[in-house]
Amino acid sequence: MSEDRWKTAITEIKKGEIRVRGYDIVEVMEKLSFSDAVFLTLKGELPKREESEMMRAILVSSIDHGVTPPSALSARTILSGGNSLNAAVAGGVLTIGDVHGGAIERCARILQDWGKRSDQISDIAKKLVSEFIYKRRRIPGFGHRLHETDPRTIKLFQVAKDLNFGGRHMELAQAVEVELTNSLGKKLPINVDGAIAAVISDMGFDWRMGKGFFIISRLAGLVAHAYEEMVREKPMRRLGNWNFEYDGPGRREIPDDWK
Amino acid sequence: MSEDRWKTAITEIKKGEIRVRGYDIVEVMEKLSFSDAVFLTLKGELPKREESEMMRAILVSSIDHGVTPPSALSARTILSGGNSLNAAVAGGVLTIGDVHGGAIERCARILQDWGKRSDQISDIAKKLVSEFIYKRRRIPGFGHRLHETDPRTIKLFQVAKDLNFGGRHMELAQAVEVELTNSLGKKLPINVDGAIAAVISDMGFDWRMGKGFFIISRLAGLVAHAYEEMVREKPMRRLGNWNFEYDGPGRREIPDDWK
Amino acid sequence: MSEDRWKTAITEIKKGEIRVRGYDIVEVMEKLSFSDAVFLTLKGELPKREESEMMRAILVSSIDHGVTPPSALSARTILSGGNSLNAAVAGGVLTIGDVHGGAIERCARILQDWGKRSDQISDIAKKLVSEFIYKRRRIPGFGHRLHETDPRTIKLFQVAKDLNFGGRHMELAQAVEVELTNSLGKKLPINVDGAIAAVISDMGFDWRMGKGFFIISRLAGLVAHAYEEMVREKPMRRLGNWNFEYDGPGRREIPDDWK
Amino acid sequence: MSEDRWKTAITEIKKGEIRVRGYDIVEVMEKLSFSDAVFLTLKGELPKREESEMMRAILVSSIDHGVTPPSALSARTILSGGNSLNAAVAGGVLTIGDVHGGAIERCARILQDWGKRSDQISDIAKKLVSEFIYKRRRIPGFGHRLHETDPRTIKLFQVAKDLNFGGRHMELAQAVEVELTNSLGKKLPINVDGAIAAVISDMGFDWRMGKGFFIISRLAGLVAHAYEEMVREKPMRRLGNWNFEYDGPGRREIPDDWK
Repeated sequence: MSEDRWKTAITEIKKGEIRVRGYDIVEVMEKLSFSDAVFLTLKGELPKREESEMMRAILVSSIDHGVTPPSALSARTILSGGNSLNAAVAGGVLTIGDVHGGAIERCARILQDWGKRSDQISDIAKKLVSEFIYKRRRIPGFGHRLHETDPRTIKLFQVAKDLNFGGRHMELAQAVEVELTNSLGKKLPINVDGAIAAVISDMGFDWRMGKGFFIISRLAGLVAHAYEEMVREKPMRRLGNWNFEYDGPGRREIPDDWK
Repeated sequence: MSEDRWKTAITEIKKGEIRVRGYDIVEVMEKLSFSDAVFLTLKGELPKREESEMMRAILVSSIDHGVTPPSALSARTILSGGNSLNAAVAGGVLTIGDVHGGAIERCARILQDWGKRSDQISDIAKKLVSEFIYKRRRIPGFGHRLHETDPRTIKLFQVAKDLNFGGRHMELAQAVEVELTNSLGKKLPINVDGAIAAVISDMGFDWRMGKGFFIISRLAGLVAHAYEEMVREKPMRRLGNWNFEYDGPGRREIPDDWK
Repeated sequence: MSEDRWKTAITEIKKGEIRVRGYDIVEVMEKLSFSDAVFLTLKGELPKREESEMMRAILVSSIDHGVTPPSALSARTILSGGNSLNAAVAGGVLTIGDVHGGAIERCARILQDWGKRSDQISDIAKKLVSEFIYKRRRIPGFGHRLHETDPRTIKLFQVAKDLNFGGRHMELAQAVEVELTNSLGKKLPINVDGAIAAVISDMGFDWRMGKGFFIISRLAGLVAHAYEEMVREKPMRRLGNWNFEYDGPGRREIPDDWK
Repeated sequence: MSEDRWKTAITEIKKGEIRVRGYDIVEVMEKLSFSDAVFLTLKGELPKREESEMMRAILVSSIDHGVTPPSALSARTILSGGNSLNAAVAGGVLTIGDVHGGAIERCARILQDWGKRSDQISDIAKKLVSEFIYKRRRIPGFGHRLHETDPRTIKLFQVAKDLNFGGRHMELAQAVEVELTNSLGKKLPINVDGAIAAVISDMGFDWRMGKGFFIISRLAGLVAHAYEEMVREKPMRRLGNWNFEYDGPGRREIPDDWK
């Protein structure tokens, strides 16, 4: 089990030369937008025109969501403890777990697994929704805490429509949305996680990379928040008294005969 | 010292509305490239045309550097221990410390501090270089381990030239390069950290944000490496026997009369 | 979904007073060993005499395992990138994932779930082993990469025997070991993860806390490794050329008609 | 600059054998308390009787401080984002930066640097205090936010006194406390960071390891807090509306003629 060679198909380094997926970094710096370069690095191939546009829209969409997401709170708290920018931002990325951006992978996984079936999309959607309802489980990618109609989701689907971009997974996502509304009697729209999940699936990305897009997008926001904490606030931020509450054991003493 | 309010000037969230630095995210998704959106989030203002082009070039330049930088190694090692993609990537970001991307801030700091002086650029450069030589200290941003002529640096300065982009800090960086070569008798060119430092300084960014650009750029590479480790390699990677060496105390026993 | 109060039953703070699980920290500092204090903090109660001894043995057992575990490698790599001691150690802790110490929780979970059954221990063991063999799945906590007979495991069971410590979970673990050997025809002994899992289960700890004991133990080793890297090695450690290999796409150019 | 060998003097691993600083782990598990094993791992030698007692007291003293320190908040926030126990605890450790436990190293550094002088302790203390007052800088290790008389500090010095433990650094710390009070006209007592700094310095530990003791101690608290968050609270904790405030630019639009 000794692994002592690091194999990679991503980037080749020689003296004076850097090639990302075979392309000279100089040429990439000349001709690619940042989101195209991201696509190339992750996919291994240059994006087609519609993929390029969709990727741009996705990466812009989640660039920040204010100070309340747990990732921004962590980044700011860690900065406050007297740490460097990269440590704070790392803490923010670390917070982006299973319920904070994790819906992208979970939704993409569902779309990819169910999308493999040979049935008609509408039939797959019916079976999918009824299985989840039966198991009393939420379908990741549908519904949102705050934004009933998430402006980012509407825009993403708009961009896709204008580009004539879309494939099996986006169709399935939209069929599921319809089916959910019918079954539950209330609107449970695709949210931004579901929209991104559907789009990246139709770009051919593995669901396991799903959260990566969200992290790459949100990184700029985390840097901004960590920096803002650094320049605007005093170090070692603390909660005021009224924000916490002890409800553990009352005062007690170690018995004389203990041990 | 109770801090219970989180103040932010970055993003405003209302039901159904997200505004980054005052701009509606929907409009941003419509009109901005990803690197423009990054600029807006960090700077607080839309980039001018030349700033937009330079930021694109900077963010593309450092998108990956293969498997050997410590950040890629950490990300892959953490993934290998059986952790999630975000944990692995967080570890990679955490590695981007004072000597791994840190030169960008240190160089930007020097350019910004010295650039404030009212002297002629060439005089400032002379004093700067001779002070560092006297203190026997390297000037961050100059020289490179592997690439004697770093293709990324040459390209960045080419882009700047074509755009007619540049200000006091870039002039100072170039004057320092000339002065260093004269003083040391050998070529110690600006490296990619120094180039980025000079450019962001002329865009008006605080040096303390310097490393953020490198992290935002390299994130895509880290995601790619963590993902590659996940799909190509067995978990729990180990060094082979010949890679480590114990040189501590020899065999010994706890004495009977200890304590 | 607004959570703005932090409730805790662990520690109560008043001006001039700190009470951990109800006990005055001054009294704890007077009367408890460090491992007893750890037990109290995690369990919420003072340990009984045998629990105290077992906890001590467990926490000592995993204090370090040299430079090759991924956690030590991460800690050292992060330190090398020019980061602080706490950042490096955090990276080490971050590496302790599902396959690096994770077996403790997975094994504890199995012992706790199966241990709830009302059957005889030997019958439970038979069903457990045959279910795992049928599903072609390894039972976490049994077998070891390097140490065929792990000295730490033998010692832990020795300590337990001398203390007459043990309950349903330890019995089950030992019955599973016997059953595995019978079924597979080769020895697949309990390893240190399995031993710890069994012991903490008999102390009444939830399996979800399982990895915490390993982390608390290994912390000292990680601090030692990060510190050693700091004082003995040059910053920015790199792999030599022969340690990595690029096997991605060959040289190629962006086509003129791309996009 | 190719580093491909990992050298360590901490732990030697052979098949069936683990030796920490030369001692067989089995013997260590037999004879050492957990705090003694921590001392051995970090120092490289077995502690003397008084050192053993002091280390125990130090490690117990900081085991937890409730839910308000930034490290507990980070750990809980990261857990809340849907991450594993080790990720949450790692985030807590990451928060223990320059102003959160960092005073231990900064104070130890001052005591060690100034303690090297050949003057009388009282004279060193006078010069030290007047230099810091002149530079308008706080001396790390003195004064406390909440506890005017920190019970942990009083206890640590009590233990030291009873053991007759103490050397140059503890003397200097106490002389500085006296001198500060005289100079400022108000009591600025040694706090727990200063007490730990003084004690570990008299044990011969390098100041750069200073924060390690605090991290090792607090780890148990962080595990308890992460676990408590896991079992008591719903995932994805959020601040209520009234806890944040946007004060950035007002609504604006991207101009038609932008770029």
